[in-house]
Amino acid sequence: MKDALIIFDTTLRDGEQSPGASMTREEKLRIARQLERMRVDVIEAGFAAASNGDFEAVRSIAEAIKESTVCSLARANENDIRRSGEAIRPAARGRIHTFIATSPIHMEKKLRMTPDQVVEQAVKAIGWAREYTDDVEFSAEDAGRSELDFLVRIFDAVIQAGARTINVPDTVGYNVPEQYAATIRSLIERVPNSDKVVWSVHCHNDLGLAVANSLAAVCAGARQVECTINGLGERAGNAALEEIVMAVRTRADVFPVETRIDTTQIVPASKLVSQITGYPVQPNKAIVGANAFAHESGIHQDGVLKHRETYEIMRAEDVGWGANKLVLGKHSGRNAFRARLQALGIEIEGEETLNHAFARFKELADKKHEIFDEDLHALIRDEIVTPETEHFRLVSSRFHSETGETPRAELTLVIDGQERQACAEGSGPVDAAFKAIEAIAASGSELLLYSVNAITTGTDAQGEVTVRLAKEGRVMDGQGADTDIIVASAKAYLNALNKLQTSARRLNPQI
Amino acid sequence: MKDALIIFDTTLRDGEQSPGASMTREEKLRIARQLERMRVDVIEAGFAAASNGDFEAVRSIAEAIKESTVCSLARANENDIRRSGEAIRPAARGRIHTFIATSPIHMEKKLRMTPDQVVEQAVKAIGWAREYTDDVEFSAEDAGRSELDFLVRIFDAVIQAGARTINVPDTVGYNVPEQYAATIRSLIERVPNSDKVVWSVHCHNDLGLAVANSLAAVCAGARQVECTINGLGERAGNAALEEIVMAVRTRADVFPVETRIDTTQIVPASKLVSQITGYPVQPNKAIVGANAFAHESGIHQDGVLKHRETYEIMRAEDVGWGANKLVLGKHSGRNAFRARLQALGIEIEGEETLNHAFARFKELADKKHEIFDEDLHALIRDEIVTPETEHFRLVSSRFHSETGETPRAELTLVIDGQERQACAEGSGPVDAAFKAIEAIAASGSELLLYSVNAITTGTDAQGEVTVRLAKEGRVMDGQGADTDIIVASAKAYLNALNKLQTSARRLNPQI
Repeated sequence: MKDALIIFDTTLRDGEQSPGASMTREEKLRIARQLERMRVDVIEAGFAAASNGDFEAVRSIAEAIKESTVCSLARANENDIRRSGEAIRPAARGRIHTFIATSPIHMEKKLRMTPDQVVEQAVKAIGWAREYTDDVEFSAEDAGRSELDFLVRIFDAVIQAGARTINVPDTVGYNVPEQYAATIRSLIERVPNSDKVVWSVHCHNDLGLAVANSLAAVCAGARQVECTINGLGERAGNAALEEIVMAVRTRADVFPVETRIDTTQIVPASKLVSQITGYPVQPNKAIVGANAFAHESGIHQDGVLKHRETYEIMRAEDVGWGANKLVLGKHSGRNAFRARLQALGIEIEGEETLNHAFARFKELADKKHEIFDEDLHALIRDEIVTPETEHFRLVSSRFHSETGETPRAELTLVIDGQERQACAEGSGPVDAAFKAIEAIAASGSELLLYSVNAITTGTDAQGEVTVRLAKEGRVMDGQGADTDIIVASAKAYLNALNKLQTSARRLNPQI
Repeated sequence: MKDALIIFDTTLRDGEQSPGASMTREEKLRIARQLERMRVDVIEAGFAAASNGDFEAVRSIAEAIKESTVCSLARANENDIRRSGEAIRPAARGRIHTFIATSPIHMEKKLRMTPDQVVEQAVKAIGWAREYTDDVEFSAEDAGRSELDFLVRIFDAVIQAGARTINVPDTVGYNVPEQYAATIRSLIERVPNSDKVVWSVHCHNDLGLAVANSLAAVCAGARQVECTINGLGERAGNAALEEIVMAVRTRADVFPVETRIDTTQIVPASKLVSQITGYPVQPNKAIVGANAFAHESGIHQDGVLKHRETYEIMRAEDVGWGANKLVLGKHSGRNAFRARLQALGIEIEGEETLNHAFARFKELADKKHEIFDEDLHALIRDEIVTPETEHFRLVSSRFHSETGETPRAELTLVIDGQERQACAEGSGPVDAAFKAIEAIAASGSELLLYSVNAITTGTDAQGEVTVRLAKEGRVMDGQGADTDIIVASAKAYLNALNKLQTSARRLNPQI
């Protein structure tokens, strides 16, 4: 019997800290339900003290999720911890994850605290957290550059204070596998009562080594890996959940652990997170990239035909490729539509919202023959907009472009209930549409990034547009989907403007 | 004095084997020049025996490149090796890289040869190759699953026959770092005269471990790493050059080697390869992803401000971020245009082609205020189409879409010199454009993938569209760029059709 490797997913916390990737409460809930379906052990649902919105998101996930532990991050101060404790109160199993920096450079330059003060604060933090739950995790921020003796000291202290999981993050992605494994091994040897806690790792990918570092640590005794879907996360991201899980499974001869993950849910989870955040997955990404299981070349295909095992170490169906089924079409009724949404974990509140969504579905089915799960996710994202967050809405549009003429867009928008029209020319129809929006909204934001991906295949697929806007130092991504790419672009631009209007500047903790 | 780590780039060979990523001779030349500028030691320019086009591409690169070794891959047969030898003849320094499978499963199921026959064939291959150059590399295909004793035997034999570099590829991406390093260490210990050759590794990323495996092998004695820009390559790709180089440089305390790479050329190389192949780089990709050096979050920014070193282990400028300069505008003249192209390593043959490209540049500058290097690359790609490969060309277009109406496209194309017109409706203007093209071309191909990325920032940026078409089991990507996204889409579709018309089905060797 192998040891269990605890999969701790932080897509909703560290992943959300990617520039522009902030998600609504409803979007986070959909991802959390998919993580639960995938049998993730711990879902880090957010940083409850960051804002009221973050608090509500963590609380909603704690209410909805039954099978996975729900965790909130908290700095090592009383307010952060009490907010986290309140947010996870409804959870079947709730965890508080508190952290403080332990590297000389961070203690001196950022915290401006002495090592003694840092230990004292950490111990207090565990005490506050234990008032809410027995399941308390402690992280030493920038452990990768901390002194080993100090780590032994602070871990000893927090274990005595009641921490159950000890996380050793490589905050800046500076470690290499052999050395990181040696650190974990030393800590487990030297920290008193180290066998009473679960050792955890949290690696960043700045040098492309997050997965390798995590796996090396597992061989050295770590039994929890913190990771994200698609390796999302700040800068170059975190260790990719799918790579950790499939390496452990494919190389069962090497790794002394096993996970509980239902691997067939990996690709659906990857697509969902990509769609909600607007972060594309590059085709040559391991496991979840479009090419990961594509065997195109001549000699190679020959090999595959002669003997499948010659080039395949994993099967595409084991990670959920091909699970994307044709679900609905033009003749599907309201009940089939509702049932499919429920199967996808999407809950629509109220008959009126459902009727509205169903009308939109019929419209889409008129233009597009086959409606896939991804189409429903896109449709629902457009549909579920809480009125208080929707300042700008597209009513109708008209676009014209012709060789030798300047492209032109005419738009009708509703802004805070008022209908407004604008017409603009541009270097292309998308540029014209954005200029027409700015003629009305006058947001003064700057376009940093524009990308489109077809949601499914075929020429009638919906284009899913991501627009990244920057305004006064804040960055926000908006998404929009439509079979008409110009309409999708206008929706994405308005979505980003709506998010810039409502979201406050937040604190994003680094571990 | 540290050992030199030889950087062997196979973007033009293994990278090109990515589905749909095949490149023209001119595109390969542009990438080869950028690799030379980056001071790559060895450029694997292609597989000369695959087709006449591949032969010509390798030969052109061998003629143009002076500072890097130019290499051609060859199976271990006389024809492959003689074709490679001819192709690299013009090179200042030329290498032949020959390979044969050595794992029991490959020898039995694919080659249908006994181990004795495989050794004999490998020795013969080295002999043929040495007729052309002293610089001969031997690869044991699927070494990762081969028996160690057999590897020792075949490596001993090929070293005696005159091989100078011995490559130990992990063809199916099955290895993990510690075990792969142990294999390399054993081979170096056991193979006679192992100190007379350079040991090389070539890792695939199926489990996300290609970079970690390569680096572990370097610590075990390997002194050449085979890698690609952006980690391009079949399935999940190869080890990423940029991650290998920056890990070795950033962790000079751990790695006993140094490279010759000019790291400031990394980001320009990444963008060039992405643009030419149409393969996007995901934002959370290490080193070259758009977020790799983005520090957006609150606490984090606070840290950066207080002390830069708290969160940065590399500097963005060291890998060439920010090197993308505003180069040209509306008032730039023909000489400035020509000079900038030369600086980018783009050679235009003939005054007429230059005049044509300059006219296109002026057109673009009318629509777009600032012209960046990436814009020039896109413009040139559209411009340099050899007449014999251009069956389909866009002459003019007209698009209209409006809320409540069906989107409509009217196109005029030239097909093999004949002007044809078509009009079609679709679920959006892009769908309508593709249907209008198919109304004329009747190619019967299937659309597998559609994506758009803005080439630079700002609303007047050109959209660069990638279209992947499949026809009778073959897959081809086409690209098109324009400030009008619908025009860019039509160009990309036609580009893919042109490629499907001219390219033959090829053999893609697997190592």
